[in-house]
Amino acid sequence: MKIAQIAPLFESVPPLAYGGTERVVSYLTEALVDLGHEVTLFASGDSRTRARLVPAVERSLRLDPRQPDWHVWHTMMLDRVFAEAPDFDVLHFHVDFLHYPLVRHCPTPCITTLHGRLDLPDLAPLHRHFREQALVSISHSQRRPLAGSRWLATVPHGLPQDLYRFHPGAGDYFAFVGRVSPEKRVDRAIEIAQAAGMRLRIAAKVDRADEAYFEREIRPLLSHPLVEYIGEIDQHAKNDFIGNAKALLFPIDWPEPFGLVMIESLACGTPVIAWRCGSVPELIDDGVTGRIVNNMTQAIEAARGIRSIDRLACRQAFERRFTSRQMAERYLAVYAALGDARAAERNPHRDPDEPGPGSSGHPFSHRES
Amino acid sequence: MKIAQIAPLFESVPPLAYGGTERVVSYLTEALVDLGHEVTLFASGDSRTRARLVPAVERSLRLDPRQPDWHVWHTMMLDRVFAEAPDFDVLHFHVDFLHYPLVRHCPTPCITTLHGRLDLPDLAPLHRHFREQALVSISHSQRRPLAGSRWLATVPHGLPQDLYRFHPGAGDYFAFVGRVSPEKRVDRAIEIAQAAGMRLRIAAKVDRADEAYFEREIRPLLSHPLVEYIGEIDQHAKNDFIGNAKALLFPIDWPEPFGLVMIESLACGTPVIAWRCGSVPELIDDGVTGRIVNNMTQAIEAARGIRSIDRLACRQAFERRFTSRQMAERYLAVYAALGDARAAERNPHRDPDEPGPGSSGHPFSHRES
Repeated sequence: MKIAQIAPLFESVPPLAYGGTERVVSYLTEALVDLGHEVTLFASGDSRTRARLVPAVERSLRLDPRQPDWHVWHTMMLDRVFAEAPDFDVLHFHVDFLHYPLVRHCPTPCITTLHGRLDLPDLAPLHRHFREQALVSISHSQRRPLAGSRWLATVPHGLPQDLYRFHPGAGDYFAFVGRVSPEKRVDRAIEIAQAAGMRLRIAAKVDRADEAYFEREIRPLLSHPLVEYIGEIDQHAKNDFIGNAKALLFPIDWPEPFGLVMIESLACGTPVIAWRCGSVPELIDDGVTGRIVNNMTQAIEAARGIRSIDRLACRQAFERRFTSRQMAERYLAVYAALGDARAAERNPHRDPDEPGPGSSGHPFSHRES
Repeated sequence: MKIAQIAPLFESVPPLAYGGTERVVSYLTEALVDLGHEVTLFASGDSRTRARLVPAVERSLRLDPRQPDWHVWHTMMLDRVFAEAPDFDVLHFHVDFLHYPLVRHCPTPCITTLHGRLDLPDLAPLHRHFREQALVSISHSQRRPLAGSRWLATVPHGLPQDLYRFHPGAGDYFAFVGRVSPEKRVDRAIEIAQAAGMRLRIAAKVDRADEAYFEREIRPLLSHPLVEYIGEIDQHAKNDFIGNAKALLFPIDWPEPFGLVMIESLACGTPVIAWRCGSVPELIDDGVTGRIVNNMTQAIEAARGIRSIDRLACRQAFERRFTSRQMAERYLAVYAALGDARAAERNPHRDPDEPGPGSSGHPFSHRES
């Protein structure tokens, strides 16, 4: 297929450091290329890909010291995308809702993956207005606030199979990886480690918005002898940092739409102890690839008994469900269904007994892959 | 004509307090209604108009304590505008560049008035990309950074003829009206008044972004016995505040795209002493409706000699050039020309000797009303 991937311009694809969406777009793009498809990536000019790159801006926006107007550059990119639309079989958008009004005028099938949390109040009226937009969620939980939208599928994120190495033997610490922010609850991770008498190593960045929270709530907790704070780490260092941990602690307190670090952990063979929030029950099999807990007592108990989780089972769950190749194959099924739906819309006089998409205007509502 | 006016949603139309663009859209809309046209106003639901109002959001965004996502609501509005486009003879946009990619897909003629400063670095590549967009500037000076764009006309802002009363006799003070910010140079106004030995009354608001500047640079100057700072005033109070002044001081230090307060002053019969920046030479006739100066020495001299300016000449200049009816008539000429251009584009085999728009794709480049 001729596929266009439209990435945000805030980070390069893949990003140098943080940037969940751009990272997933990179994995998907390369996996589609591996599967033999003709992929065009609309992204910042400092991106690296084996697809055809259409550079929509010279360099990614977030770290550009000239502080470019993000809206200007995304507007120009979308205009280029829709100008080239007839050359593609499908346009796959990862830029929130920027393109919705343009999709109406586009004969090529369009699909949007929503990467963020969807419980912000303005998103409900927006998606009622644009209810015909074909959407993909990254977890079933994520789509709950927009239940009436035209969800074609849930496609969990995937990682290249060999990005993380299986680490068969656990080290002597728990790991916390991500951002230090109130909803990520690193304070809970510290409490669990202390109660279980186990070391905790924290590899996390502090965004400017969270600096006051970090200084007030977290820094005082870091002096405990079992706790080690090592700041932000890169992709390469993550492999051993997560892989050598007894477990990844993921004690979140918000509706996490996906949580890439959980599958990074499984890829290393490291079980996950996570609060029952957002996507967690969809990614972790309680008792098999980690423990899903509801409170601190359960979390401490899970930490003490983490040896009962088989690390190989974690790695196998990753390989079975969360590789970028599987992600790409799931998206290819969505693209195909979308193309069929377009064809059916164009030819409404087809035989009603013929197998195929339903007869409603939104033939794929409630279908999930 | 059937005309759609598309306003920003930050303020109601007209705004309750500050909000230059929404205020001008209101004056234009009501003047077009007065001239017998069928006008639809896309704006926030708390707007007041004699046109047909399409409320794009319940209440204007800036003062809504729920802090709505501006982008969501503007996106929905634009989608409604383009859905209704076939019902109009012209769509007139006042929302910066948000709609540019959609204009390509719209058979109805579209025109955009750019209300802001245009020397921001990202606007040049944006307008090179969208060079076919039909634009109106609010001063010739404003368009300089985007000289290669398709400018159809400069249409100066206008005020309803009776909004401000002619004040034949001057009081004993100079007036400064607007924002306290570095580029508005209220410090210069204070220096002029002190040097001329004349009272200065300052009616200005301080935006949050300018609070530190105000405290550090301006507040220490306000204790001088000739200076009185009265804060922000409303439309009603402005009439006498400006009308009773000997002159309005407008000592700006930036490329002001228009400067509505200058024509408010002329409407009151109050001459303007202004720095030669941005739109100033297009609005003020030096020696007739005020003085245009290049430095402090000239400004102090102008202040001392301001009695030589005939207040009636100021009011007459306003009535001759800057009423909202004249603004509406100028825009009607633009709409008509735009419609002719569309017709010509659709019928390229017309007689080349026939009078009408030129044969280039951008028949109105360089034309100004």
